[in-house]
Amino acid sequence: MNRTNNCGELTKSNLGQTVKLSGWVNKIREKGFIIWVDLRDRYGITQLVFDKERSNDEIFTTASQLGREFVIEVEGSVIERKSINENIDTGEIEILVTSINILNKSLTPPFTIENESDGGEELRMKYRYLDIRREPIKENLIFRHSLSLEVRNYLSENNFIDVETPCLIKSTPEGARDFIVPSRLNPDHYYALPQSPQIFKQLLMIGGIDKYYQIVKCFRDEDLRADRQPEFTQIDCEMSFVNQEDVFQQFEGLMKRIFSKFLGSDNTTFDRMTYESAIEKYGTDKPDLRYELLINNISDEVKGKNFQIFDNNEISVCLRVEGKSDLTRKEIDEITDWVKRPQIGASGLLWIKHNNDSSFKSSFDKFFSESDLRVISEKISSKPGDIIFIMSGEYKKTLEQLGSLRVELASKFNLIDQEKICPLWVTDFPLFEWDEEEKRFFSMHHPFTSPKPEFLDILDKEPEKVIANAYDLVLNGNEIGGGSIRIHDFDTQMKVFELLGMSKEEYTSQFGFLIEALKYGAPPHGGIAFGLDRLAAVLKGKDVIRDFIAFPKNNSGKDLMIDAPSKLTKEQLKDLSQK
Amino acid sequence: MNRTNNCGELTKSNLGQTVKLSGWVNKIREKGFIIWVDLRDRYGITQLVFDKERSNDEIFTTASQLGREFVIEVEGSVIERKSINENIDTGEIEILVTSINILNKSLTPPFTIENESDGGEELRMKYRYLDIRREPIKENLIFRHSLSLEVRNYLSENNFIDVETPCLIKSTPEGARDFIVPSRLNPDHYYALPQSPQIFKQLLMIGGIDKYYQIVKCFRDEDLRADRQPEFTQIDCEMSFVNQEDVFQQFEGLMKRIFSKFLGSDNTTFDRMTYESAIEKYGTDKPDLRYELLINNISDEVKGKNFQIFDNNEISVCLRVEGKSDLTRKEIDEITDWVKRPQIGASGLLWIKHNNDSSFKSSFDKFFSESDLRVISEKISSKPGDIIFIMSGEYKKTLEQLGSLRVELASKFNLIDQEKICPLWVTDFPLFEWDEEEKRFFSMHHPFTSPKPEFLDILDKEPEKVIANAYDLVLNGNEIGGGSIRIHDFDTQMKVFELLGMSKEEYTSQFGFLIEALKYGAPPHGGIAFGLDRLAAVLKGKDVIRDFIAFPKNNSGKDLMIDAPSKLTKEQLKDLSQK
Repeated sequence: MNRTNNCGELTKSNLGQTVKLSGWVNKIREKGFIIWVDLRDRYGITQLVFDKERSNDEIFTTASQLGREFVIEVEGSVIERKSINENIDTGEIEILVTSINILNKSLTPPFTIENESDGGEELRMKYRYLDIRREPIKENLIFRHSLSLEVRNYLSENNFIDVETPCLIKSTPEGARDFIVPSRLNPDHYYALPQSPQIFKQLLMIGGIDKYYQIVKCFRDEDLRADRQPEFTQIDCEMSFVNQEDVFQQFEGLMKRIFSKFLGSDNTTFDRMTYESAIEKYGTDKPDLRYELLINNISDEVKGKNFQIFDNNEISVCLRVEGKSDLTRKEIDEITDWVKRPQIGASGLLWIKHNNDSSFKSSFDKFFSESDLRVISEKISSKPGDIIFIMSGEYKKTLEQLGSLRVELASKFNLIDQEKICPLWVTDFPLFEWDEEEKRFFSMHHPFTSPKPEFLDILDKEPEKVIANAYDLVLNGNEIGGGSIRIHDFDTQMKVFELLGMSKEEYTSQFGFLIEALKYGAPPHGGIAFGLDRLAAVLKGKDVIRDFIAFPKNNSGKDLMIDAPSKLTKEQLKDLSQK
Repeated sequence: MNRTNNCGELTKSNLGQTVKLSGWVNKIREKGFIIWVDLRDRYGITQLVFDKERSNDEIFTTASQLGREFVIEVEGSVIERKSINENIDTGEIEILVTSINILNKSLTPPFTIENESDGGEELRMKYRYLDIRREPIKENLIFRHSLSLEVRNYLSENNFIDVETPCLIKSTPEGARDFIVPSRLNPDHYYALPQSPQIFKQLLMIGGIDKYYQIVKCFRDEDLRADRQPEFTQIDCEMSFVNQEDVFQQFEGLMKRIFSKFLGSDNTTFDRMTYESAIEKYGTDKPDLRYELLINNISDEVKGKNFQIFDNNEISVCLRVEGKSDLTRKEIDEITDWVKRPQIGASGLLWIKHNNDSSFKSSFDKFFSESDLRVISEKISSKPGDIIFIMSGEYKKTLEQLGSLRVELASKFNLIDQEKICPLWVTDFPLFEWDEEEKRFFSMHHPFTSPKPEFLDILDKEPEKVIANAYDLVLNGNEIGGGSIRIHDFDTQMKVFELLGMSKEEYTSQFGFLIEALKYGAPPHGGIAFGLDRLAAVLKGKDVIRDFIAFPKNNSGKDLMIDAPSKLTKEQLKDLSQK
């Protein structure tokens, strides 16, 4: 072993001990006859001192040849440090080195190994192994490890069994696009990589496993958006003989354990909201409840004043921002430009200022008198000093656009209490979504989601009105998990496949084994899956999941470090019969 | 929740309670006015009783319509059972049912859901979800879960961090064949699935993670042999600043914890043996030390008697089997036939009987006198009543053939103490193997394995003599893990690539990122990987790893349940540009 101790643990209680440390040269300071080196490993930093008087010449010479990121092994004694560094645990001691061995040299790294590195994203990805040496990335990976271990232990204590499901499975084109793996042993046949272990976990329930979990890689060959990864990790769970309430209880338990352990919060309460009211009040199915800023529907109040925008549109909705009536024209224009960006796609933004002197001013004064504006103000209880932003348009689109503005304004005006933890179950999702382009229904979650029993009667006649036994868990505006009670009844499953426009031949060839399994005593079951990458990031209050993945891919699905994907050799292509 | 209790936990202490249970109908017994049903779930079996007198008519009628594997929910009261069943935990009580609900029906399963099923392998694989309901398979999966959680907790307590490495990586044709994944976003470019996270874990060490582990899926596109899986699971570990001894200490700790927890054995000792002596004494690099039956080299003793077989062959070796001199001619012939099978490939088997009356008899009496035979007997200390089996031939081949016979005889003659736990480190593997066909060296482990420092001098000149810093962990004759101290030095790594016959262009294009990483302060590091599927099977004393995998593939790499691999749709093939 190249060490007796790590670089994060020596304190005054070790004074006088002879120790051996190994690590990387983090920093070097020279002062003629004395050299200080910050030695770094995963556990911390310890200051080494090389002294012409107290160390011998050879050691001093070696020390003077060190460079940043050299790997060294030193022996020495723990001595008291004159100038205490209170920022690090080892700040009261240093090591007077009596022997040094350079284990490996290093070229000068292409960027600084510091908390705030000078390396750009692309460079840091190419040299990810150096990027990982940086404290923030390293700590993210350690946090992810602790998080997943805590999840495992909680689930195991609650009788969940970790069962590995296969990676080389069958392609099922319904849903997102599969990654495909040609089978050399079976020409013209292909495996697919799983988008999730959905069907396998259902089969495990049918197999009597009762409670299953797995922290598992999933794959989706999507056209990548920013911060989407072609491979991602899911905490995948399923339980038998449960209803929605049982699932909520079980996983609120998991989340409470996580909040307590990692955020020090022991009294988190879980809100619940239907999909419909989430859209109505927040313009999104993942509302951030850390701040109010609710959407108000003022359609009735604004109609009939001969203002076409209000009169001709399906819906008019507004946000009341407290104490911002003093926004300048320029500031309002910037906000208007923001909602008109193609990502949001609003056609415009109207406003009313409820001035400090209780008068009103709006961007549509031509159509609305002060008393007309007061009607709106009363509807939404605005106070002097507030500004009201208004959008009109199609129902869902407009709510979503104003929902986006809500998030933007909260961030812009610092309305978010970063200490708050606001988990929320969003429930009662529609079972189907109508796709205007393909002129057919799609599953809002997936085809195995059960309709609520009270809607079974209208499944055939009015599928668009059927509410699913489906739910999402939202944390501070991020969807961190989603699931449902599944269909365990053969007839209902066939009906849903049919409503999705699949022929018997199609659903039999893709899902025949599941349909068959439903005939042999499938228990009622349901579950949930959490995105581990996202969960880790959200718990740490971060947006970028890439920073919580050891070796992420970029937005083109490329690993810049190993240079993958890459071309194959002729022999390999021949093996795949792709000459 | 469809239950207040599970089917494995009610005892006399619950008498009088009203409970709700859910599960599968395991067995039904009818006796006119009374019906008993064994209700089964993952946790056990509870007897239900339906009684025309005590239950109402409707309930009794429902009960009489139940079939095997129906899923039901019942309510009732816990009553004392008249005829106690001592085989199950719930054997002292039964449930007098007051309400029953059929949650799902079941067709008659294609095989019996019992410990010894009447279903053949193929049928059980096709209906694996039913196979999993069987106690032995279910218990295997639960054991695997407990085993991997114990591994995780041990490693985590010892500062190992679980880091996920990518699944979509770059193809590196050196070694076994990769599974290939075409990239749709990057035409003509391909990912490969990892055969192991070897290079990534080394990069994590270079990244300062210090101690890494992962329980991870690996993939090898091999021509499948019996009980080989195209995807398998590895407990993958790596440590920095360590030598071989440190690795041994760390993982003996892990194994002791496992032996203690799962086998109740607290005093296991770990043997060590070089590769050379393992081959010499056991004819294999994974010797089973639970029984003696060593190989003896009698080449010197048997030469010079004009018996060509002995005189012309490189080596003559024997096994002495105690107390078996009374084997009949027929029995010896059977053993001889066994070694002549193509899987073993021996040309024949000679024998000497050391009779109970101290006389000798051999299959080559024509050439050897009784006193010639006594010389052999003395060399190997045979005793009256023993039989000696002899093989002659090429050095390694003959030792391996006799090694196989050793294993066969131990099993045939019940020489194995099934209670024994004999872990063994096999060390000092050669770095390279010469391949006569391709006329080049191959890495015995992989190209990142370091030579022992004392052999660095002859690396160039006599590569075949170089011993590696590599080791296997063998348990009761099974290789359960293998690893090495890796090369952390740029020059040595280049040299090894060259000795493997790779051009600079080849190794740069395949491993350029690793080579580059070695320039930036790579620490000394090493590790080990255990096969989880195999480890689970060996700990349970089983041979078939398939029984420890939830959804295994067959010997053609097919999943018979989901019918994968399968054909793709035209749209999918087009996406892959494979029209």
